[in-house]
Amino acid sequence: MIDDRHRTALLDLLGDKGVVTDDGDRAGYQTGARYDAGIAALVLRPRTTAEVSKAVAYCVGNDLAIVPQSGNTGLVSGSTPDMSGAQVVLSLDRMTDRFDLDLDNRSLHLDAGFRLSDVNRRLEEHGLFFPIDLGADPRIGGMLSTNTGGSRFLKYGDVRRNTLGITVVLADAAGTVLDLNCDLRKNNTGIDWKQMFIGTAGACGIITDCVLNLERLPRQTATAFLVPTSSAHVMPLLRAMEERLGAYLSAFEGISQNAAGAALAHVPSLKNPFQGGIIPDYMILVEISRTWAPRDGEQSLDAVLEEVLAEIWETEEAPLADAFVGPPSEMWALRHALSDGVKHAGRLIAFDLSFRRGHIMAFCDRMKAELPHAFPDILVCDFGHIGDGGVHFNLAVPKDSRLWDDPSFERRLRDRVISVAVDDFQGSFSAEHAIGRKNQAYYDLYTPAKIRDMAAGLKTITSPGKLGTVRY
Amino acid sequence: MIDDRHRTALLDLLGDKGVVTDDGDRAGYQTGARYDAGIAALVLRPRTTAEVSKAVAYCVGNDLAIVPQSGNTGLVSGSTPDMSGAQVVLSLDRMTDRFDLDLDNRSLHLDAGFRLSDVNRRLEEHGLFFPIDLGADPRIGGMLSTNTGGSRFLKYGDVRRNTLGITVVLADAAGTVLDLNCDLRKNNTGIDWKQMFIGTAGACGIITDCVLNLERLPRQTATAFLVPTSSAHVMPLLRAMEERLGAYLSAFEGISQNAAGAALAHVPSLKNPFQGGIIPDYMILVEISRTWAPRDGEQSLDAVLEEVLAEIWETEEAPLADAFVGPPSEMWALRHALSDGVKHAGRLIAFDLSFRRGHIMAFCDRMKAELPHAFPDILVCDFGHIGDGGVHFNLAVPKDSRLWDDPSFERRLRDRVISVAVDDFQGSFSAEHAIGRKNQAYYDLYTPAKIRDMAAGLKTITSPGKLGTVRY
Repeated sequence: MIDDRHRTALLDLLGDKGVVTDDGDRAGYQTGARYDAGIAALVLRPRTTAEVSKAVAYCVGNDLAIVPQSGNTGLVSGSTPDMSGAQVVLSLDRMTDRFDLDLDNRSLHLDAGFRLSDVNRRLEEHGLFFPIDLGADPRIGGMLSTNTGGSRFLKYGDVRRNTLGITVVLADAAGTVLDLNCDLRKNNTGIDWKQMFIGTAGACGIITDCVLNLERLPRQTATAFLVPTSSAHVMPLLRAMEERLGAYLSAFEGISQNAAGAALAHVPSLKNPFQGGIIPDYMILVEISRTWAPRDGEQSLDAVLEEVLAEIWETEEAPLADAFVGPPSEMWALRHALSDGVKHAGRLIAFDLSFRRGHIMAFCDRMKAELPHAFPDILVCDFGHIGDGGVHFNLAVPKDSRLWDDPSFERRLRDRVISVAVDDFQGSFSAEHAIGRKNQAYYDLYTPAKIRDMAAGLKTITSPGKLGTVRY
Repeated sequence: MIDDRHRTALLDLLGDKGVVTDDGDRAGYQTGARYDAGIAALVLRPRTTAEVSKAVAYCVGNDLAIVPQSGNTGLVSGSTPDMSGAQVVLSLDRMTDRFDLDLDNRSLHLDAGFRLSDVNRRLEEHGLFFPIDLGADPRIGGMLSTNTGGSRFLKYGDVRRNTLGITVVLADAAGTVLDLNCDLRKNNTGIDWKQMFIGTAGACGIITDCVLNLERLPRQTATAFLVPTSSAHVMPLLRAMEERLGAYLSAFEGISQNAAGAALAHVPSLKNPFQGGIIPDYMILVEISRTWAPRDGEQSLDAVLEEVLAEIWETEEAPLADAFVGPPSEMWALRHALSDGVKHAGRLIAFDLSFRRGHIMAFCDRMKAELPHAFPDILVCDFGHIGDGGVHFNLAVPKDSRLWDDPSFERRLRDRVISVAVDDFQGSFSAEHAIGRKNQAYYDLYTPAKIRDMAAGLKTITSPGKLGTVRY
C-alpha cells in the first residue's frame, strides 16, 4: 500500500516502538469506538513533541496525509483512517511522560497522551481533579481537539474554559513546534492562538502537551431524581433550582423514559429507583456538591436538597410531579449506563445536539410527535445536559425493521433531524463531538461561504499539509 | 486635515447624528481615560450594525484608518487616535438599542454600546448579572475586545468565558458583517471564530453586538481582611481558603501597604479598618458569597468565614498574623479606592501584569528590593488579584523627583519591570488590558516571529483594512 521507503525512513526517525509493524497491533488504531473501520498506511507512535515534529515534517514533505489519534473514543469518525489505505495514523498513546503538578497555581502541565481517568486518579490524593465528566475515557489531546463538555459543564464549563496553554505541532514542511504554553489565567498579549487549536478536530495542528486548570474535588454530594409535571415545566424547574442553589448545582441531566428503560433492561446490576418500578415519562437527575468535608452543626447536603425541593413543591403551579433524594452512586450508575443501554435497544442513530436551554424540550417534543409517523419503528431514547443545552438525541431502530430496506433511510433521517435542530431551532449539530468524516456534510451545508473561506485561510497559515479528517 | 468630501459622504451615510462635527464634542473621543491625547480626522457614531458596515466599507475603500472606540476607559492607548490627525474614530456609544434577555437560557443579547453599569442595573430585578467586576465602567464592546477579567475572575472567569456569540464587522472592502451570534453553550461545529475577535483589541473586526452568559446575583456576602504572616505565606493561605471554601470563594485580592495608605490618605470618606489605624505590610481582601437568600437555621456567611479563619489559625505554621471579618461595603470601598488613591501618590507608571499564582509575591518582593536602589524616590503601590495571578503593579514617582530629568527614565523603568516579569518569571505584560500603542513595543519584542507572521496572516483573512491601534 505505502512505499516501503517511507516505513524505513519513519522507523529510522522514531525507532522500533515508534512504528507499528504488526498487522494485529494495528487493528485498534484503524477501528473507532462505535462506527469506524478504515485502513492505515502506517501507524506511528511518537513519544515526544520532537518526535511528532520529525514525523509530521517527513509526512508533509512526502505528501502523506496524517490522521492524529488520541483515545479514539469519538463518534464522528474524527480519529480513524478512511478506507483508502493512504492515511498515516499518528497516535498520541505513548506521550505520557510529563506530569507536572503546580499546587499553588492549581494547574497541571502534562503530555497529551494521558487518559482522563489516569489524570484524575493521580490528582485524587491532592483533592483536585480535571472537572470534565464524561461517559467515555478519552486521552487529553483528543479532549482538547474536540472541546468536550460533559455532565458537569453547568458548574465547571468545557475543556476550552479549563485550558491555560498548549504545545502544537503544525503540519508544515518543518513540522513547526508552536509553544503556546502558559500557566497564566489572565493573559491578553495579542491573539489567543490556542483557541484556534481547541475544538478544531486536529485540522490546524497536533496538540502534544498542555497546561490545564484544576478544580477542588467535591467532598460532599447529594443527588435526586425529579419528575417534572410536564415537559413545559422543565425550564421553570431549572430556574427554581438555580435560584435556590447557585454554585452548589453541579448537574441537571434530563433522561427520557425510553433511555432509562433501555438501561434498566440491559444492565442487570442497576437498581430501579422508581416507585413500583414505573419509569416516568421524563426525569431529571440533579446533583449538588460542596468541596469541603462536612462540618459540625452544618446542614447535610441531603437535607439542603430536601429543603429546596420542599420549597419548590410549595410554589404555585409547582413544576414537580415527584422528587426523591437518593444515593449519588446509584443515581449516577443509572445515568452513566444510558449510553450502553440504548445500544441494546436497536441499531443506533445518534445525534449530539445542543440548543438554547428553553428550546431543548420543545425540540424533543416535536421530534417525538413527528418521527414515529415519518419513520415507524423508531424509538427515541434521548438524554442530555439540560443545564447547558446539550442533548444526546439517540434513535434506536430494530435491526430487522423494514426501514433498513431503503438504503437512503439513515441519510434521510439524519438530514431531517438535523434540519429541524439547526433550521427550525437554531441549534448545533455537533455540541461536543466536533467535526469528522461523519458530520462533514453538515459542516459544508451549514457553514456560510465566508466562514469556510476564512477557515481555509487559517488552515493555510497554520497547517498547509494534509492533517486530520475534517476538510475546512 | 481630512478631505471635506469624506465628511460629506459619511454624513450622507450616517446622518447628522452619525458624525460629530462640533470640535468641542470631539474632545472626549480624542482623550483617553488616563494617558492619551490625539487628534481625530473624524468621529463617527453609527447606531446599527448596518451603519457600522457602511462606514467601515467607506473608510476601507478610501484607505482611511479606523480606530474603534467603546467606553474609552482603557489604559494602553487602544481606543484613541494618534497625533497624525489622519485616523477616524468610530464610537459605539450610540449602539444601545437591542437588549434581549432570555431568562431560561440565562443569557443576554445586546448591542455593544451599553455600559457595564447599565447592563447590571437592568438585570438586577431578575436576580442576574454579568459577572465581571471592574473599577472602571467600560462599554461591552470594549470589554470583549480587551477580554477584561477583574476582581471576581476566581469565581466567574473573564469576558471570553462568558461570551456565547458576537456579531463582527470586518474592515474589508464590503464592510462584511460576520454573524457569529449564538446563544448556545455547547457548540463545536468547526473553528470557533469568535475567539479571534475577543481580546484582540479590535484589530480583526469591530464587535457590534453579542450574547453574554449571565450569572445569579449573590444574595449573601461576607468579607474579611487577612494579614499573612509573611509574603511566603500568601499561597498557603490561598490554598487553605480554597480547600475549605470551594465555590464560595469569590475574591482573594492582595493589597500592599503603600496602595492602602494612598487610598486612606486621599479618599476622606474611607474608614481605616485596621487596629490602631496601623496599616499592615500586606493584606488580603477575601470575599465569600452565596446566590440564595438566608434560610432559617442556616449558618450565616459571616459565621462560616469566622469558623474557617479559626480553623486556619489553629493549623501548624499558621499563615495568618491577623484576620477580621467586616462589612463588605466598607471593605470593598477601600479596595475600589486603590486606583484613585495611588494616582495621588505621585505621577503614576502603571503595569497590568500576571503570573502563575506561586510567582506573584516573589515578583513583588524582588521588585520592592531592587527598584528603590535603581530608581530612588519610587513608591511601589501594588495591588491585584492573587486568586488568578493578576497584579496591578503601580509605581508612583513624585512629580518633582529628579528621576524625571532623565528623558529615558520612564522607558528604562518600564523595560526593566517588564523584563523581570516576562523573562525571569514567565509572566504576562498585559493581563487584561490587551495591546494598544502603549505596549506595542513589548508585543513586538516578546512575540515569536512565527506567531507574528500568523497574526499578520489572520489580519489579512479578516480585516485587511486599517483598523485599530495595534499592529499585528
